[in-house]
Amino acid sequence: MVVILKQGVTKTQIEEFTNWIQQQAEVQVSAVYGAQTTILGLVGDTSAIDIDLVSSKDVVETVKRVQEPYKNANRKFHPDDTVVTVAGDRTIGGTQFSVIAGPCSVESEEQIIEVARRVKAAGATALRGGAFKPRTSPYSFQGLKAEGLDLLRRARQVTGLPIVTEIMSLAHLDLFADVDVIQVGARNMQNFELLKELGHCDKPILLKRGLANTIEELLMSAEYIMAGGNHNVILCERGIRTFESYTRNTLDISAVPILKRVSHLPVVVDPSHATGITWLVEPLSKAAIVAGADGLIIEVHNDPGHALSDGAQSLTPDQFDGVMGEIGRTVDFCGKTL
Amino acid sequence: MVVILKQGVTKTQIEEFTNWIQQQAEVQVSAVYGAQTTILGLVGDTSAIDIDLVSSKDVVETVKRVQEPYKNANRKFHPDDTVVTVAGDRTIGGTQFSVIAGPCSVESEEQIIEVARRVKAAGATALRGGAFKPRTSPYSFQGLKAEGLDLLRRARQVTGLPIVTEIMSLAHLDLFADVDVIQVGARNMQNFELLKELGHCDKPILLKRGLANTIEELLMSAEYIMAGGNHNVILCERGIRTFESYTRNTLDISAVPILKRVSHLPVVVDPSHATGITWLVEPLSKAAIVAGADGLIIEVHNDPGHALSDGAQSLTPDQFDGVMGEIGRTVDFCGKTL
Amino acid sequence: MVVILKQGVTKTQIEEFTNWIQQQAEVQVSAVYGAQTTILGLVGDTSAIDIDLVSSKDVVETVKRVQEPYKNANRKFHPDDTVVTVAGDRTIGGTQFSVIAGPCSVESEEQIIEVARRVKAAGATALRGGAFKPRTSPYSFQGLKAEGLDLLRRARQVTGLPIVTEIMSLAHLDLFADVDVIQVGARNMQNFELLKELGHCDKPILLKRGLANTIEELLMSAEYIMAGGNHNVILCERGIRTFESYTRNTLDISAVPILKRVSHLPVVVDPSHATGITWLVEPLSKAAIVAGADGLIIEVHNDPGHALSDGAQSLTPDQFDGVMGEIGRTVDFCGKTL
Amino acid sequence: MVVILKQGVTKTQIEEFTNWIQQQAEVQVSAVYGAQTTILGLVGDTSAIDIDLVSSKDVVETVKRVQEPYKNANRKFHPDDTVVTVAGDRTIGGTQFSVIAGPCSVESEEQIIEVARRVKAAGATALRGGAFKPRTSPYSFQGLKAEGLDLLRRARQVTGLPIVTEIMSLAHLDLFADVDVIQVGARNMQNFELLKELGHCDKPILLKRGLANTIEELLMSAEYIMAGGNHNVILCERGIRTFESYTRNTLDISAVPILKRVSHLPVVVDPSHATGITWLVEPLSKAAIVAGADGLIIEVHNDPGHALSDGAQSLTPDQFDGVMGEIGRTVDFCGKTL
Repeated sequence: MVVILKQGVTKTQIEEFTNWIQQQAEVQVSAVYGAQTTILGLVGDTSAIDIDLVSSKDVVETVKRVQEPYKNANRKFHPDDTVVTVAGDRTIGGTQFSVIAGPCSVESEEQIIEVARRVKAAGATALRGGAFKPRTSPYSFQGLKAEGLDLLRRARQVTGLPIVTEIMSLAHLDLFADVDVIQVGARNMQNFELLKELGHCDKPILLKRGLANTIEELLMSAEYIMAGGNHNVILCERGIRTFESYTRNTLDISAVPILKRVSHLPVVVDPSHATGITWLVEPLSKAAIVAGADGLIIEVHNDPGHALSDGAQSLTPDQFDGVMGEIGRTVDFCGKTL
Repeated sequence: MVVILKQGVTKTQIEEFTNWIQQQAEVQVSAVYGAQTTILGLVGDTSAIDIDLVSSKDVVETVKRVQEPYKNANRKFHPDDTVVTVAGDRTIGGTQFSVIAGPCSVESEEQIIEVARRVKAAGATALRGGAFKPRTSPYSFQGLKAEGLDLLRRARQVTGLPIVTEIMSLAHLDLFADVDVIQVGARNMQNFELLKELGHCDKPILLKRGLANTIEELLMSAEYIMAGGNHNVILCERGIRTFESYTRNTLDISAVPILKRVSHLPVVVDPSHATGITWLVEPLSKAAIVAGADGLIIEVHNDPGHALSDGAQSLTPDQFDGVMGEIGRTVDFCGKTL
Repeated sequence: MVVILKQGVTKTQIEEFTNWIQQQAEVQVSAVYGAQTTILGLVGDTSAIDIDLVSSKDVVETVKRVQEPYKNANRKFHPDDTVVTVAGDRTIGGTQFSVIAGPCSVESEEQIIEVARRVKAAGATALRGGAFKPRTSPYSFQGLKAEGLDLLRRARQVTGLPIVTEIMSLAHLDLFADVDVIQVGARNMQNFELLKELGHCDKPILLKRGLANTIEELLMSAEYIMAGGNHNVILCERGIRTFESYTRNTLDISAVPILKRVSHLPVVVDPSHATGITWLVEPLSKAAIVAGADGLIIEVHNDPGHALSDGAQSLTPDQFDGVMGEIGRTVDFCGKTL
Repeated sequence: MVVILKQGVTKTQIEEFTNWIQQQAEVQVSAVYGAQTTILGLVGDTSAIDIDLVSSKDVVETVKRVQEPYKNANRKFHPDDTVVTVAGDRTIGGTQFSVIAGPCSVESEEQIIEVARRVKAAGATALRGGAFKPRTSPYSFQGLKAEGLDLLRRARQVTGLPIVTEIMSLAHLDLFADVDVIQVGARNMQNFELLKELGHCDKPILLKRGLANTIEELLMSAEYIMAGGNHNVILCERGIRTFESYTRNTLDISAVPILKRVSHLPVVVDPSHATGITWLVEPLSKAAIVAGADGLIIEVHNDPGHALSDGAQSLTPDQFDGVMGEIGRTVDFCGKTL
């Protein structure tokens, strides 16, 4: 950690500050004195130091971390890839590539079972479907809730696919007891109370990056879960908010190799939410694979009763068949197995 | 609502779509046929229509709302300013200007009572202080929690100032029973389960804009609370995330007159969090007042035991005295009273 | 300047690097050695050091500037406010407040003279009008060019108002010989060849911030002009590009007090382009004044032949009269004169 | 084009507006009347309509384009891929994949010839190198200018590689007479006077997306060049400015398939500038290829005299050899040839 002090700070103030910082953590402090500026270098374990607290000291101009503020999620301390076990016998991470597919919302038994069958036949490794839906408007459909979870379980029974579904409140935690992977949505990435609670279970958590959150903040949210003891965290890049309006969000493809380098956790990419555009799912899925992703999460919808419906961002099962062909070829090219 | 259809859509498909949309809401649909494009105009009460669902129909190219998707928060349906009553005898909104001041975190009884006394003496109308603290890192101080709420109550007893403090989870709701104003932080602006729950109490809610949320999304989150029956919502602009790095966030000053025009709810501005820089609090407070804000929320910190500390974004009580002088002059200039 | 070295760098490499850096500038280099990290503190005049070149050295992890990279524009070296003289007898900056008003484009002699008369009568201190227009589409009206400059001169003759107009290419520089203030638009803020050329004339330059440029980059572009010898630079905040779509851009009101603090140059604000919305001009103008701006640049349009036209972002002369009333009151409140 | 009119607009005003719009372009106007809103649908060739002018009419609430505002660059009117011929016998676009490599700046004859030899040996198809350098600071190295162009020519003579280099001002156009591909940098993407001039030559133009420019704006800038008669435009995605600070910019990978779909022009990707990080060049190059890019532009630097230097974003020739291996494999996987 490097601390740049304000102009005119006295030797006594520097000593006082040095004593204070050494009460916070076991660090050595060395000073570089300039005509206009004094710079302090802090070496040792600085992860316990609250950078905001240091910034708030009135002798301090700015502070810069040299080391990452996350530990459990940091590859430096865990050089090997984490492979998360799902539903007993499946894994996410390592040389196994995962494709989690299914509808945005669970709507009916027919729908979810039909989609589950189709995505399984196409090669998907898990079923996604929303029972609790975060919607911008209170007047929009909020999901089938507990009933939706029931329908997912039936689809699992029929197809054998593990189920991935989003939690929106720790009040619902009991309902998720036999869900295979609990998803934390982008809007809850910094719902710290929820993260802490999920740190006390041992279920795999699929943690989506918030729309305006940095890569480091995503890792700090993973750290919240891991600090509680649950190391089964899967990171998910799903697009960030920028000025570009052609796509709903901007897929930050660089986040994939960066997350893989700085962390040991598996990384999946959601091209459906990142762009909101069906025909972008195939090229972005391929881009994610060659960039090093461990899996994809893709929206697939089926609505035989409403022939008109196929979803601006949801693929039909037939379209998904085609995309899976390309995904399979690309996974193979990268030396992984689907 | 305007729906632009895809090229090559048939008359039968248009009829099917029209029938479907008229099952969703009582609207009249008129079509404009062009060589390449067909445009449908939907007139009537479109607020019940789920725009995402419409977009997902495969005949649809794009959809554009003409009317706002919020009703309870909409000035069109409530032309008069809402004035929120706080702690029985005080108000936020109208010609009364509010200054909510206090420390980022409640740290000790001495601290919070001393700060409360000082901000009251300077003219503040409410005391803020965090008991539950949303922190990016699990290793940072998370607040005194229930004990912090106790200390706030004591500070209220001593000074008579109503207290404003942040809730982070609906699991803590009981602890907030006698808090005067419950704050929903930027990171929880779209924690919809929390918003729904707050819609069932009658306490004033100070709702902060999320870092990457639009003005319309802020109003939709207010709508969640209001749809539940609680109309005591105070909106708060506190800066958005942009590429500019000089300030922590970018205060969107335009949001103030926009929110005042499109909504009837009171609007307060938080210059401390918007910028993270002490010396910007005064000019931005003045800007907020003349732009039409109903109040300010300002960080003031006092730490006599650690003379070094004055906070990068927190004013000392002495600095706050100076800022309040300018705030008072500006409120007066705008024909309001403090 | 603080240089953080990569792990595993040897003493010899540090010596080599230190020698190299001392060939670049007269600085003292002190090292802080840690178990994992070595930090170098560089003190002295670091403005001549090319930070990109330093970053590119393979021993370097990251570099952080402690001092600002701009000199001529820096208040540290020029504590007094710069007051720019315009057209011989008028000034921008200091206790004089400026209002530059006029149409987006010069369209005809009648139009520009009528608008000039009206804005002068309302109290404007200069006339703006575009002769060369930067348009996103090659099929949009590109301005009257040389003829537009002629018409501006006639409007100056009739009203006595100095004229402010945008240059788009150094090939046109001769045409601007008797323009009073040359405007560099947002899209040309980093057209460095144009900036260098403008540094060799002695005319006031109104430099607009680019849509995606930081405050520091704006000052570096001012530095390009000033390094050439022309110190008559007026900075202009006109909104930055963000995800918010209610307004065309997001006015960064914090930029006003920041620019006034770190630089001695006058700062004007353009609320018309920042928002693209007429009714926001008044509240944002007032916000800019109390935040410390030295002037405003406002679009006013008059089109008697087309009664329908009043401009989404242009005020009519009648509306401008009303806005000027509020501007006058606010300038007076701030102890300046219009 | 859909025009939504303001509430309370009269029939006479609608007629006046309709007459006016039909003077602008040959369009049919149909109206949909609602209780609160009137919607006009404009069908026909709307590309000649200035959307800003329409928005500025006081009867207009908002306007929405249905058709793209670009024609020459639009795939709808040119279904086949454009293949740009470079230096007589090479091509960019189609099934041929291009790799343009070389140093950020031309520094010396030895440097540029050595790098040219190495990148050619590794399989690059063109040599890049900056002679005129856009630098944020006037105190940074601005390039060797005319001498740099000479050195590029010598490197071409030695290796046979066509040369790609950036123009910063139309005043330098003569110097670029025998350059093979003229690059327009991100900061000049909306330097419309420069674009117009380049439209009058027949040289291939590599047009880089601006840091804060949308995909549509990039295409409109291509349209400026093409409207002048020069159809040899190569589009380049090189990262946009967002809040994420791990990378210098955020590579918008979605822009690749979008540009390929909506336009017929070749698209290249610059992973070096997009991220500023050497080790991201390989994964992002592969991502760009599978997403459909026609080429890459990569920084490679060689500085044998300064063993310390290898560039934060520049690969060494040895590193480039490795990256080219992966690029070759991926190009082959996509059925193209290098």
